Amino acid sequence: MKPMNEIIENAMISSWVRHFLRHPSQVNQLHESDAELLEIPTDPQNYLAVTIDTVADEVANGLYQDPYTIGWVTVMACTSDLAAVGAYPLGMVLSVCVESKRDKAFTDAIARGIADACQRLGIFILGGDINLTPSLSLTGCAFGTVPRKSVMTRCGCQEGEYLFISGEAGIGNALGLVRLKNLPGELFPETLYRPTAHIHHGQIIAPFASCCMDTSDGVLTTLDQLIRLNNKGFIIAGDWDQILSPLVWQLCKKTKTPPWAMLAGPHGEFRLIFTVPTNNVDSLLARFQTTKNKPILLGRVQEKPVITIKSPAGDMKDIDMAPLRNLLDSVNGNLQRYVEEFMECISRWGLGE
Amino acid sequence: MKPMNEIIENAMISSWVRHFLRHPSQVNQLHESDAELLEIPTDPQNYLAVTIDTVADEVANGLYQDPYTIGWVTVMACTSDLAAVGAYPLGMVLSVCVESKRDKAFTDAIARGIADACQRLGIFILGGDINLTPSLSLTGCAFGTVPRKSVMTRCGCQEGEYLFISGEAGIGNALGLVRLKNLPGELFPETLYRPTAHIHHGQIIAPFASCCMDTSDGVLTTLDQLIRLNNKGFIIAGDWDQILSPLVWQLCKKTKTPPWAMLAGPHGEFRLIFTVPTNNVDSLLARFQTTKNKPILLGRVQEKPVITIKSPAGDMKDIDMAPLRNLLDSVNGNLQRYVEEFMECISRWGLGE
Repeated sequence: MKPMNEIIENAMISSWVRHFLRHPSQVNQLHESDAELLEIPTDPQNYLAVTIDTVADEVANGLYQDPYTIGWVTVMACTSDLAAVGAYPLGMVLSVCVESKRDKAFTDAIARGIADACQRLGIFILGGDINLTPSLSLTGCAFGTVPRKSVMTRCGCQEGEYLFISGEAGIGNALGLVRLKNLPGELFPETLYRPTAHIHHGQIIAPFASCCMDTSDGVLTTLDQLIRLNNKGFIIAGDWDQILSPLVWQLCKKTKTPPWAMLAGPHGEFRLIFTVPTNNVDSLLARFQTTKNKPILLGRVQEKPVITIKSPAGDMKDIDMAPLRNLLDSVNGNLQRYVEEFMECISRWGLGE
Repeated sequence: MKPMNEIIENAMISSWVRHFLRHPSQVNQLHESDAELLEIPTDPQNYLAVTIDTVADEVANGLYQDPYTIGWVTVMACTSDLAAVGAYPLGMVLSVCVESKRDKAFTDAIARGIADACQRLGIFILGGDINLTPSLSLTGCAFGTVPRKSVMTRCGCQEGEYLFISGEAGIGNALGLVRLKNLPGELFPETLYRPTAHIHHGQIIAPFASCCMDTSDGVLTTLDQLIRLNNKGFIIAGDWDQILSPLVWQLCKKTKTPPWAMLAGPHGEFRLIFTVPTNNVDSLLARFQTTKNKPILLGRVQEKPVITIKSPAGDMKDIDMAPLRNLLDSVNGNLQRYVEEFMECISRWGLGE
């Protein structure tokens, strides 16, 4: 079993949570679910699903330079957590912490990003809190209901099951690559980073999937976390040109970046990664016959708790995500060193160029 | 009618909210309620009440120097909003934004403040989010249910009704006075600032009160906001030594600070201010016969939309809170000028020394 607290972020969460008592009606344990799940006495059919998410370091480290992106992602980040449990959103509340130096054009653009994201999803901001602070952060809290009988958590996958992703991946790390390597913005403009939370997708897959987690931290980080929770592993053997978005593929080719770098980075795209027992696969895919965004096959669940990646040349390589997940701490937040060591690390995987 | 947007903070909120569509099942309009109220189809007896609150500027401006206070207040601030609608809490989620320079002793103290506050109220943290950020902030989101038939909002008071506060006031501004005037900490130690959200109180008063709002921003700011919402005014004619906590009284005497300064400042104490129709007063007070924390009579509702204060000498003076509520903006955040102009402003009220 790979220890959860080998990952510095998980250990940090644990060190906070050990101070707190657990709610007697909470369904999920720590780390086990993208949204917190609560039994409520007045609704025996559903759980209440609640989640909170802050957008801050993406602004501080220069990843988001367009205020519209900040607003957009604040909405998508927390609603995506609802999607990953199969919930039906009820609404959102919002806390805005903004520096007093910011002008109205800037805050208006954040607000438009929020409003457009809500409209895209058909959800509403109910209210919030505004603060003038030394550094910018936006916190969204989204809540909804999820049928008890079909709720998804991060736990439950079994060997041999199919591994899917709810849409093409890589746009988050594509933006990250352009920013961290100081590449020309036109190679992957920030306006292309408009990920949409897969709420409807989550609702469709919920009765069929054995576990689910969103890719807010990138595809391979998501799989690594699922490995630590399930003591199972994953074989990624899907076609790279189906897994990656075409725009991300183009960027990889132009910059000679291996495609798996776009799954390995920590900046995700709010897709759902989920596993489906073999006897559920046909019924599940039938549900997507008339929809545009079909699940993409990533691979299979394996007994060995490790990520195994099939290279374009057909080699199978086991990879370890722990050094990458802890890399920002290892380099003390130095982003220049981060990107250099990141690329070295994945080249050592031996998957090819 | 006093315009809502005369107050800079209200105008700032409005300028954000104009971008957003309103939820068709939301019960309250903007500014009308401490917590957002939502009809949920699965529960025709209750509304879902949700609120979000960030503790940030109290840390940035040096008001809170003990990390335990930060944690404690984060819990109390958002649960107090639930109390003000008469809700029964279901739980809380939490987003922690902390500077990487902070050591474990500091973050442990925040966590203990959170844990102790939760235990005091009998509520639970369900989960959250942790971020390393350039400046510290803690955001709590609390949610609960409130019976539709007894829900309280900030709207509904009528002339002649009684005005109550759920407990003694002033500890928030007492701490503020000590910090802003750089007085010796022993005059009002930060450890005395441990306000408790009046959740049970809110549940008891809900069937009797005509409107309610918590004093998170101080008593007179609360009344000013109620005036703008209800187009009614308030006469404060209660005994000062019943309204103020004895510790706050002591501080006033030692520092020659007029008692109404402890109601006029912007740093509150999470009491509930509420109005009760005359024919409900006896039934309400009967409910408190066996409890320790009884409501304290502050005064009455008057037709004229202004705060009228009875001085210790018996004079009745109308006061205007708008200049005080906008003062931090008027002095561009300069805290030294803030405290000087604040004291000048209230001395012009002519209530005495």
